[in-house]
Order: sequence, then structure tokens, then C-alpha cells
Amino acid sequence: MLTGSQHLFDDATRVTAGDSRWQGRTSPDYWAFVGPFGGITAATILRALIEHPDRSGDPLALTVNYCAPIAEGGFDLDVRLVKANRSTQHWCVELTQGGGEVATLATAVFAERRPSWSHQQAQFPPAKPFEQIAPYRNIAAPWVGQYDFRFVEGHPDFAGAKKDAPASAYSRLWIGDRAPRKIDALSLVSMSDAFFARIFHARGELVPFGTVSLTTYFHADAADLSAEDISRVLAVADAKIFHKSYGDQSGELWSPNGRLLATTTQMGYFKA
Amino acid sequence: MLTGSQHLFDDATRVTAGDSRWQGRTSPDYWAFVGPFGGITAATILRALIEHPDRSGDPLALTVNYCAPIAEGGFDLDVRLVKANRSTQHWCVELTQGGGEVATLATAVFAERRPSWSHQQAQFPPAKPFEQIAPYRNIAAPWVGQYDFRFVEGHPDFAGAKKDAPASAYSRLWIGDRAPRKIDALSLVSMSDAFFARIFHARGELVPFGTVSLTTYFHADAADLSAEDISRVLAVADAKIFHKSYGDQSGELWSPNGRLLATTTQMGYFKA
Repeated sequence: MLTGSQHLFDDATRVTAGDSRWQGRTSPDYWAFVGPFGGITAATILRALIEHPDRSGDPLALTVNYCAPIAEGGFDLDVRLVKANRSTQHWCVELTQGGGEVATLATAVFAERRPSWSHQQAQFPPAKPFEQIAPYRNIAAPWVGQYDFRFVEGHPDFAGAKKDAPASAYSRLWIGDRAPRKIDALSLVSMSDAFFARIFHARGELVPFGTVSLTTYFHADAADLSAEDISRVLAVADAKIFHKSYGDQSGELWSPNGRLLATTTQMGYFKA
Repeated sequence: MLTGSQHLFDDATRVTAGDSRWQGRTSPDYWAFVGPFGGITAATILRALIEHPDRSGDPLALTVNYCAPIAEGGFDLDVRLVKANRSTQHWCVELTQGGGEVATLATAVFAERRPSWSHQQAQFPPAKPFEQIAPYRNIAAPWVGQYDFRFVEGHPDFAGAKKDAPASAYSRLWIGDRAPRKIDALSLVSMSDAFFARIFHARGELVPFGTVSLTTYFHADAADLSAEDISRVLAVADAKIFHKSYGDQSGELWSPNGRLLATTTQMGYFKA
């Protein structure tokens, strides 16, 4: 297993230290169609917060609003601690390019996760072992090739339109980095956006699509993730509605050991 | 049905026009335990955006991070249009009191909802009619009394602890304003936070709790809501996990006509 800066993911999310202004750079390895893969942008923002000298606690909630495509090259991150309490921190981050035009706007909550009553109501979804499933091979964009997707249910079939009899938008799949990397908060937020658009599944075809707003909640802190010591998650994603050019998605990221690590929701634009 | 400024809800969410700086005031009618009900704060922020002269389109996604309790009295809203495109707007709002201390941080996406392929995959939950269910009568805080809750499933039972054998966190209920008011985007965002904390249901007791981050997605625009012409929603809420002092909640708000109007998620702090 590769760790630290040897991994492409860590190269792609690298940020240069600053106080309130940080720098990053898009990575061709995680490129999507008209800009970087949204998950790598979210992970880069989270990395700047985690590496910030004023940060305390673990990420609890992250919302990333994609305001405009990010152009290839460098960008600035304006990182601002808006409010700090005894056990929580509230951050706001603006990713800008070319003279201050905002391309991405994010808020994050960090928290000291104190011991408490614990109860996992959600059920670990059944799944064939990772090793028994062939990897997904259709690398439509560079970022897709950075992940090892193994579908348990809802295998992509984008060959023919199903718009008159929509198929289920539900998917269950293993997701790991193609070059295995230990799962941390950064990989969880990136994988939150690594589901194929639900409308591709529902309609059985690719249509123009872009994530507009992504929210991820973390249910494991750094100590929990370190104890899990895993390099892949079992993920489920679904949608409830597609209406007037926008649709939702909800997802869960599970440890192979049966622990719910993160939940995520998003709204995406589509043209169909 | 009361409309406009006759309604307590509209009084409670009133904002005074400004350019980038707006003013509002807490309402005793929607008070919770240590501050205003989070839903009324979220609705007040959304109202400032909807009434802003530069606003175009309908609310698509709203995230509200509760940074600190809001004290009784006036507050300022710093409202900033961060980025506008052809069909979307990205806003950031800071609610401050007492010399600029941030109590609430929010981001919002507005969009022109263009006609498209439409598909509602989620199923309308079954429910006994509103009129056949007795209203919930336990008014623990003023804001609770402003709503007419009628539980279909998961009726609150906070009399005895269930911590060793947790009960289901799932609830299905009708929610309307006590004095009926036509459902608009403001009521949807307020009702997004009107579920009792899931941990109260899971443990069968009240414990210290506070919403930390709330996200609501709108699946109906103003024209859709106007056509529905309703004064209550059928709502469902559930939780997946409670761990290290934080727990999640997800919810759906349905028109009685069977249309999914909004979905919502939140992370809340608890002490148990």
C-alpha cells in the first residue's frame, strides 16, 4: 500500500501552506470532462483545512458548492476560521482563480469527537467480496481510472436510453483507489463524489451533468479510521427525484468491517 | 388560511431591506431552549435571500451551520452574492450579533429551474389522513406550539430510557403551521428542522441536543409550490448512526398530493 506523498491522490490534493491564503493546482490525473473531478476539489479544500495550523478536531460536516468550472492550472484557497467554540470550529473556504473569481465555495465544521452513547441503526449492506468481482473497465475520464470500482448491484449500462421506463438509480459497489491507499477523511470526501451520476443509471445513458452542491458527514474520526486500517469502502448511492434540470443523490460509505464511515448527499444539474 | 404578514411565521422571519447587510430579530413565538428554533433561523436567512433585489431563480440548496447560540434580540445578516452564472447564483450569509461575532454561517444555491425530463423514483409514504389523527400536545418549547404535528408512525415516547435496547429513530408525520399557512420555500426549510431530534426517539428520552449543520434541497420551485396550494406536508425522518457525541438525520417533505417537495439532512450534537 502506498502512503503519503507517493500517491497520485496526495499529489493531486497538495496545497502549499499559507495563513488565510493557500495555493493548489489542478491535476491531469483526476481530470473530468470540463474541469477537475469534483471529489478531488472537495478533498483539496479539506486538506487545506486539516493542514491549517489553527485547525483542531476532526471533520464533521463539509459542504462544497461548485460555482463555476475550475480551469487547468493553479488556484488560490481563501481559508477563514469563522467561529471557534470549545469543541467545534466553523470554516469557510473560497477557491478562486484569475483575479478573484470564485469557482468553489465551501463550509466545514470540525469537532472534537468526545466519547458518548453509540448506536448504528443503519444495516451494513450485503455484498460479494471485492476480490470476487471484476473491476469496472470503462475509463470515460482520467479520474475514473484512479479508482477501482467493483459493482455489486446497479452495474452501469449506459448503452441504451431507458427514459420511457426509467431503471433504478440505486447502486452498491466497492470503491478503492486503483493504487491502494489507506482510507482517511480525504478519501472519504473524494469518494462521496465518485458515484456516477444517478441520472446515467436511471436513463441508461450519459447526459450532460454536473454536481452543484455536495455535503458529506463524517461518522468516524481520525482515530476510528486509523483503527479500521482499510483501503476500500462498500458504497451505496440512490436518488429520489429528477425534476426541472436538477436531481438529488444520497450515499453511504461503509468500512468492509461493517462500520458506517460517512454519509453524503448532493444536488446535480442535468440536461435531458 | 392566513397569508403574508398576518402570520406569526412571517413576523418571526421578517428582515429589513439592505444591500449587503440586513437586519432581523429573534421571535419569542419560535423560541427553543437556549436560542431560536433552528428552522426559523434558516427560514429568516432564506427570506433575506429571496427578498434580495439581486436574487434570481428559486432556492435549490441551502446549508446552515449553527456556530453559536443566537441571543434574544436583533441580529445582522451579511448577505453576499459570491458568484452568478447564466442560470445559478451562489450566496453566502453570515448572521452576526454583538460586534460581529458569527452565530450562523450559511450558503445557498439559487437556480432557474428549466423544464426537463422528470422522474420521481421515491415512493409516497402511506399515511392516515391528517384529520383522523390527534394533534401532538406536548409543547416543550414555544416553537413546538407553532406547528401542528400529527404522527402516523414513531409517535414520541420520551418517558423512559431505551438506551440498552434502542428504539427505531424513524418517524412519519404530518406537519402544518398551527395557524394554517400556504407552504412555500420558507416553510419547507423551517419544517426541515422541525423533526424532534432522532436521539430522543432512539433513546426514548430527552437529552441535550443541538443541530450543528442543516442542508435542505428543494425539488419544487415557486410555480410548483403555488400549483400544489397546500398548508401541510407529510414528513419522514430517520437516522443512521449516533457516535462520539454526534448523530445524523435525513428527512423528506411530501405534498399531500404525492409530490416530493424537499429533502433534508443534518448533523446534530448530543450529550448521552
